Amino acid sequence: MVVGRPEWDNRDMEIISAIQQRLGEEAVITPGPGMDPYLTERRGLFAGNRARAVVRPADTEAVATVMQMATEHGVGVVPRGGNTGLCGGAAADDNADVILLSLERLNRIRRVDADNFTLTAEAGCLLSDLQAAAAGAERLFPLSYAAENDCQIGGNLATNAGGMNVLRYGNARDLALGLEVVLADGRIWDGLRGLRKDNSGYDLKDLFIGAEGTLGIITAATLKLFPPVRERATAIVGLNSAAAAVSLFGRLRADSGDTITSCELMGREPLSLAIAHGTGCAEPLTTSYPWYLLIDLTSSARDAALDRRLEDALSGTAEGIGDYRIATDSTMAADFWRLRNSIPGAQKGAGASIKNDVSVPVADIPAFIEAASAAVIEACPGVRPCPFGHIGDGNIHFNLTRPTTMTDAAFLEQWAPLTRRVHDIAMAYSGSFAAEHGVGQLKPGEVARLKSPVEQDLMRRLKTAFDPDDRLNPGKVVPPIGRPPSAG
Amino acid sequence: MVVGRPEWDNRDMEIISAIQQRLGEEAVITPGPGMDPYLTERRGLFAGNRARAVVRPADTEAVATVMQMATEHGVGVVPRGGNTGLCGGAAADDNADVILLSLERLNRIRRVDADNFTLTAEAGCLLSDLQAAAAGAERLFPLSYAAENDCQIGGNLATNAGGMNVLRYGNARDLALGLEVVLADGRIWDGLRGLRKDNSGYDLKDLFIGAEGTLGIITAATLKLFPPVRERATAIVGLNSAAAAVSLFGRLRADSGDTITSCELMGREPLSLAIAHGTGCAEPLTTSYPWYLLIDLTSSARDAALDRRLEDALSGTAEGIGDYRIATDSTMAADFWRLRNSIPGAQKGAGASIKNDVSVPVADIPAFIEAASAAVIEACPGVRPCPFGHIGDGNIHFNLTRPTTMTDAAFLEQWAPLTRRVHDIAMAYSGSFAAEHGVGQLKPGEVARLKSPVEQDLMRRLKTAFDPDDRLNPGKVVPPIGRPPSAG
Repeated sequence: MVVGRPEWDNRDMEIISAIQQRLGEEAVITPGPGMDPYLTERRGLFAGNRARAVVRPADTEAVATVMQMATEHGVGVVPRGGNTGLCGGAAADDNADVILLSLERLNRIRRVDADNFTLTAEAGCLLSDLQAAAAGAERLFPLSYAAENDCQIGGNLATNAGGMNVLRYGNARDLALGLEVVLADGRIWDGLRGLRKDNSGYDLKDLFIGAEGTLGIITAATLKLFPPVRERATAIVGLNSAAAAVSLFGRLRADSGDTITSCELMGREPLSLAIAHGTGCAEPLTTSYPWYLLIDLTSSARDAALDRRLEDALSGTAEGIGDYRIATDSTMAADFWRLRNSIPGAQKGAGASIKNDVSVPVADIPAFIEAASAAVIEACPGVRPCPFGHIGDGNIHFNLTRPTTMTDAAFLEQWAPLTRRVHDIAMAYSGSFAAEHGVGQLKPGEVARLKSPVEQDLMRRLKTAFDPDDRLNPGKVVPPIGRPPSAG
Repeated sequence: MVVGRPEWDNRDMEIISAIQQRLGEEAVITPGPGMDPYLTERRGLFAGNRARAVVRPADTEAVATVMQMATEHGVGVVPRGGNTGLCGGAAADDNADVILLSLERLNRIRRVDADNFTLTAEAGCLLSDLQAAAAGAERLFPLSYAAENDCQIGGNLATNAGGMNVLRYGNARDLALGLEVVLADGRIWDGLRGLRKDNSGYDLKDLFIGAEGTLGIITAATLKLFPPVRERATAIVGLNSAAAAVSLFGRLRADSGDTITSCELMGREPLSLAIAHGTGCAEPLTTSYPWYLLIDLTSSARDAALDRRLEDALSGTAEGIGDYRIATDSTMAADFWRLRNSIPGAQKGAGASIKNDVSVPVADIPAFIEAASAAVIEACPGVRPCPFGHIGDGNIHFNLTRPTTMTDAAFLEQWAPLTRRVHDIAMAYSGSFAAEHGVGQLKPGEVARLKSPVEQDLMRRLKTAFDPDDRLNPGKVVPPIGRPPSAG
């Protein structure tokens, strides 16, 4: 992937030296192999192996200084968190006339306010550290997903991360009450308010969230906390159709008193892959079903009787619902969850895969899966759709495993056309071609191809209003005018 | 208040005639007394008695036509919903070179999608009609407040309305998944997506919500629905301090399994006013306390045992908590709620009052109330603070009733200086001077006085980017550069 940068020019050295003078030696990674981890992109999909400097400011003022220096030197700035994004938003692009700015040293939890159910933390804090700090105050910070030990809250907010608990607690956006942001020109916007109600002007906060650092650099946030989880019930259910899963989800939401926290749909194909290639994964039910739901109910009450609620909801006769098992202890619950969490890795055991991150209205999930499966099979006979995802959010990871008769390389050449077909079908159901992983440098072409001209124009107006000289994460999210459509 | 407009000039008639030609006779209210209801502002605080025309378009395309015509004729457009706002956002300002655009004919519920837990409705739909449509599909649309039979969802979204259930379900902003918006130049942005996860570009939706029509005119929205309420428990609790209320709120949130939907704080003074001047209001407890909490737990589960949870939480010994009563039936629950709902009207019985709509972090409510009370009493001896509000949201209506020895008129002359003092103290606690009623034309001066220059600059950049010719609700929300500070 990244092979280090062959040589450094005078302009690089001039910028590095200037930053060292202003922010101290320790704020700059000097050219050499030490830079490589900062230039590597997780999947190796993006160039990212060039930047004029890698800077690690220690506080918000130093981030502001970097932006001022970017203007002085006429370069862009690529902000970078935990490097767990999958769309190249935190990697330098081909242009390479950028400073890569790592937020990792802004890692202080500034305040935990249990009475206000809030926590204020800097951008470089690890998500798992925030979860722990909340737990220490008998509170829950509910954002949770596979990369939680590596990802940083600044990146979570910049990409509006989703994860396992969105159904109950919302995306990262929904968890942020206030932000501190360094603007393109180096000014600092102090919007660190911990208020549930504030209608004293335009909603600036939500503009920066999900903008992937293209409108400003999030340096700290005040986040919502919740009561801690004191009771949990987990079940796995076999289903005869995806439509039955949609109905069961709606009924469970109501009957459980909206205590449903996760509701993960798995097709038989990805479940089979998990059982075949995952570690410690066993057939969960005695009968095989075309579809499965993995359900978690949680409550902060000590006597919520969640097991009984699950039993009541599942034992009633309802069309399309087959066997089920309710976990009798946390070990069994972990066994069920291991099936779900093994799917992404298990796909690798069956050859190359093409990943899609789409969402549609919940009610349209069955029709979407049917239409998208037919379309990709038509385009690439033998391809194995592996649909799974967060049914309550309408977020389906419509992943494709290569035909058994095809080489990995030949299959991956189909990435663009197959992905485009899946996106087209998601859009036909008023869905999204970028549900929880963002746009980065992977999908600006799809923004250009699939978003209305009006929406693209509004996006460009915002970019121009906040970053007229294109200093902030250039080339990401907003497609340049006239850029030819490409796949994402 | 409004006395009708004495005369109409040629420019008025030219604009009216042009609109009639394009949109039909029925789309225009012709000059005369029929116009008065459209030019009246509820409290009579704002001029609002002049507009070049009153237009009632029937659909989104017609709204777009009005915006195009506004450009052609060089006038502004003031969008107007149910006219229940209190900050003059929907009233014409002194300038009067505007078309007043009523959304009332855009009143179709386009779709109720129970499986997706969403509803799509046009801006002119009454809030109570949306509640009813949701209930008809066994769903809950939780936005609720006193004006719900008169207010329109477009106005709710344009002002990011709050209300009684924010603690559980969020503000209007949190309930909107997608919007349809007519832009300043008459283009239509179709952002009517019903998705829980969509990170395919900048968050445009949240810019229009709470912008009070100054960035675009919301013509339709896709809104979140929830499972219906099937069980409810209501209690009133006497407390020795506001701090005890904050602690009890935190404990109740956790112990009730986060089923707490409303948590209303009332000081003894406003409660006494309600008992003295309200209809059907009786002392709720045998002992008098300085503070009271009115608590609602709700659940969509049929066996949530909410009464028992309330009893368990309240019967435990905790500092500062006095007597309590749990409603044994819905009549008693209604009696408790009548006390809370009678406060705003009851204040009138005790003479003129000055209203504040501030928020602070929940933990700071006791200190804020103490500091603000001391400040207003110092400035106006004998003034009676009547604090009440939504404790879980940190939203205190810090209303002031005139001293018994003062005339209404003399007291109301203190509006600006007293309000400024209260706002200053809210800001000192990192609070907001406009929590749930917005800015309108009442508080742009406070925006100029209290918001940072950086934040004002970002607001102006947004206004310029989306409405460069200042056609959309001119003079509202964003303070003009150099405008002298005034009270709000």
